[in-house]
Amino acid sequence: MNFSAIRRVIGWILLFEAIFLLLPLLTAAVYWEEEFFVFLFCIALCASVGGLFLSKKLKNDAIYAKEGIVITTLCWIVLSLFGALPLYLSGADAYTSYVDALFEIVSGFTTTGATIVPTGAEVAALPKSILMWRSFSHWVGGMGVLVFMIAFLPLSGARNMYIMKAESPGPTVSKLVPKVRTTAKILYVIYAGMTAIQIILLLCGGMSFFESVNAAFATAGTGGFAIKADGFAGYSSYLQIVVTVFMLLFSINFNSYYMFGKRRWKEVLTAEVKAFLLIVFAAITAITLNVYYTNTLTSFGGALKHSAFSVSSIISTTGFVTEDFALWPMFSQILLLLIMFVGACAGSTGGGIKVSRLVVLGKSASNEIGKMLHPKQIKHVTVDGRVVEPDVVRSICAFVFLYVIVFIVSFLIISFDLNNLNYAGVENTKFMTGFSSVAATLNNIGPGLGAVGPAGSFAAYSWWSKLVFIFDMLAGRLEIFPMLLLFAPSTWRR
Amino acid sequence: MNFSAIRRVIGWILLFEAIFLLLPLLTAAVYWEEEFFVFLFCIALCASVGGLFLSKKLKNDAIYAKEGIVITTLCWIVLSLFGALPLYLSGADAYTSYVDALFEIVSGFTTTGATIVPTGAEVAALPKSILMWRSFSHWVGGMGVLVFMIAFLPLSGARNMYIMKAESPGPTVSKLVPKVRTTAKILYVIYAGMTAIQIILLLCGGMSFFESVNAAFATAGTGGFAIKADGFAGYSSYLQIVVTVFMLLFSINFNSYYMFGKRRWKEVLTAEVKAFLLIVFAAITAITLNVYYTNTLTSFGGALKHSAFSVSSIISTTGFVTEDFALWPMFSQILLLLIMFVGACAGSTGGGIKVSRLVVLGKSASNEIGKMLHPKQIKHVTVDGRVVEPDVVRSICAFVFLYVIVFIVSFLIISFDLNNLNYAGVENTKFMTGFSSVAATLNNIGPGLGAVGPAGSFAAYSWWSKLVFIFDMLAGRLEIFPMLLLFAPSTWRR
Repeated sequence: MNFSAIRRVIGWILLFEAIFLLLPLLTAAVYWEEEFFVFLFCIALCASVGGLFLSKKLKNDAIYAKEGIVITTLCWIVLSLFGALPLYLSGADAYTSYVDALFEIVSGFTTTGATIVPTGAEVAALPKSILMWRSFSHWVGGMGVLVFMIAFLPLSGARNMYIMKAESPGPTVSKLVPKVRTTAKILYVIYAGMTAIQIILLLCGGMSFFESVNAAFATAGTGGFAIKADGFAGYSSYLQIVVTVFMLLFSINFNSYYMFGKRRWKEVLTAEVKAFLLIVFAAITAITLNVYYTNTLTSFGGALKHSAFSVSSIISTTGFVTEDFALWPMFSQILLLLIMFVGACAGSTGGGIKVSRLVVLGKSASNEIGKMLHPKQIKHVTVDGRVVEPDVVRSICAFVFLYVIVFIVSFLIISFDLNNLNYAGVENTKFMTGFSSVAATLNNIGPGLGAVGPAGSFAAYSWWSKLVFIFDMLAGRLEIFPMLLLFAPSTWRR
Repeated sequence: MNFSAIRRVIGWILLFEAIFLLLPLLTAAVYWEEEFFVFLFCIALCASVGGLFLSKKLKNDAIYAKEGIVITTLCWIVLSLFGALPLYLSGADAYTSYVDALFEIVSGFTTTGATIVPTGAEVAALPKSILMWRSFSHWVGGMGVLVFMIAFLPLSGARNMYIMKAESPGPTVSKLVPKVRTTAKILYVIYAGMTAIQIILLLCGGMSFFESVNAAFATAGTGGFAIKADGFAGYSSYLQIVVTVFMLLFSINFNSYYMFGKRRWKEVLTAEVKAFLLIVFAAITAITLNVYYTNTLTSFGGALKHSAFSVSSIISTTGFVTEDFALWPMFSQILLLLIMFVGACAGSTGGGIKVSRLVVLGKSASNEIGKMLHPKQIKHVTVDGRVVEPDVVRSICAFVFLYVIVFIVSFLIISFDLNNLNYAGVENTKFMTGFSSVAATLNNIGPGLGAVGPAGSFAAYSWWSKLVFIFDMLAGRLEIFPMLLLFAPSTWRR
């Protein structure tokens, strides 16, 4: 294990974090908030610790798969540990302990959007600089902080690839151009461009500048931290529709946008994107009909608008809310819970299992059905005209298996809390709450159902359950393997 | 598709069913029940329809994988359609419609044990001949009705293998001896022998002959239909322990018993059996501690006894009950729900996903973790010292994937009922009820949690939900593929 290279990258990440913290610092200055000094202190801390790490000489810059994984995981952990400080040190009452603050910022960086702040009113009352830091953490975590670093730092090519592999969502990483660094730059240009367009469209709808920037950051990263007491419920239909569209746009593989720019149309509408759009369309239709015909929502237009918003919010793993879907009929709730696991496309900023994995699993399963009828037939699994290597299929199976194991173990640990939570006014109780709490954090969604539904929060859980959720959010964002490997003894063996 | 061969096997199955029905006929005669005439009529019907099918000449006896699957699935459906008649025609009020009767007998043959009879008191009030038919259906379905047929009918060898493959639980079928027919005979000898031993042990504990036979049939098939109002709660500790042990014995791969007889010790304790026993031990320990320390059960001995009974009942997919575990703390309930999916060993009479599949998936996943660290390393998945072919791993992945799909689709369909069920006095409501209803039928367990917990029943569901559960029970027993293939157009294409 090349520790000196690991230390170096962590040093760089801390310097980057110091730079990221300038945005909330600026916000605090504009709004004359005393959190200005908190952010100033945190910047100084990040910069000095980062500088300390970088001051040691790099002995050897060769890194391999192992180091790539360890670097990525440790960077995310360090980023969160330092990123939680402003929340903890701020005057906000909601962050009563460091674990609470850590939960909140991990929820931010991993673009989960689950909050520890007990009520919407308390969220709206947070200092503006803190709100900005929460939203900005979504944006930074969405496309990947290490991808950002790669775009700006001159590191050797092989190293970049290993890191990019470990941080990028999806079963395989395809470089848009031969150079990893250029790929990273292109991705960030698309990302920043789309964010800017969304800000403009929100401003056109009469949203304030502060709110537009926050909302766009949270949408772009598919994060979902709200800054108003009622989430998105109070905004106009125009603004809700803009956000609906952008949540979907940010959950499509960014390669598609690059190919769109290159006019390689066939590569824009890949099998994954088609499947994604199909699932979205089917889910919106089913939920619209369900809430309309059960009179949960009485106007058809309203039913369509709210179900489109909710489906887009959940499948993109954003977690914004216009309606309390924890009060919808069971069919709609269960469908929403299911698409939590589906998640977005690979290579987007969304979480979940990813549509591309499900496409491969589905094709592989239908292949096996064919084999039952004709045992001697040999057929390959193909997606977009290319054969999917058996290795990739195997790795996807292992991924899903471990996903389920992490889910189960988490569920069992947090289940000790379930008999003690407050279910006043909650429709579905313990089991739904526990199940959806894990689903919402592991898939990086945000709100769940039951007591952690849109009207609730994760505040009532014990500190050890919160640590489990922190693990799950990181495991979800980094796609399981890196988090598990960090704790595997064989990773650290020489 | 060789229709004439399919017709022939179905004809035989109906003749066998006529023979099976002699047992409840005899019971009705002994207890002077008017159901005697119902059974007599059904026997005549099965025999004549079966005879009619057999009277047509067999054109060609070549059958392949395709025919093996179709034969198995159709036989199970025909067996159930005719087997439901005695319940429907009997004087029992509980079976208000033919769908109810069909649900009950499918639950019997598939060794599920979920009942449509609303209360325990109504179960106990059923005619004795009907109780016997329910319990006997467990015994017939447990080891497989087609395996039974193979043991007694002179069919060609290749045909047998295809049928045995389709009916036997587990990812692969291993023949104990070169001849399939001899293997089938050996299996039935072990099965009948163990059942007889259990009957004797129950008689020794003071259980009546009628009750002992019923209980042993339901244990041997890992079925779980109760015949008393309070299930197994009212029996002595001795009887409860005997049943606990036999539930576990019947969920171990029968090959182990054969190898035990042959003194090939290494092949007795396979990786699967070890993993199974480990899971059982861990689950019993965890639940005992949980119910004891939460004061759900106040004596440690009682906690141990009831949790051992419940864990064995659930993991063996039997579904007998001594305690209403739907009232236990959430941790215990969730753990029980999880081991519903684990299920028994392959080659046993139990249901679920099967431990051997999970062993392969686990080893395959840990292999993949190793590959992340050392991408160029090539390692095979081995179980019991033998390499597991990639084909088998792929087919297991496809199996689990389709399992989940069937689960999800079923859950969504039945969710429309969830807002209308009666939850009076039920701890956990809609979501837990729906989730565990599907889990309990697809895994062939019997009782679920919430409103379908040990104190509840499936009576309140609508007829279309019951049809879904019927499909799930058959899909669970025949391990998904056969039921799906029956509805695949490509199966029927020439």
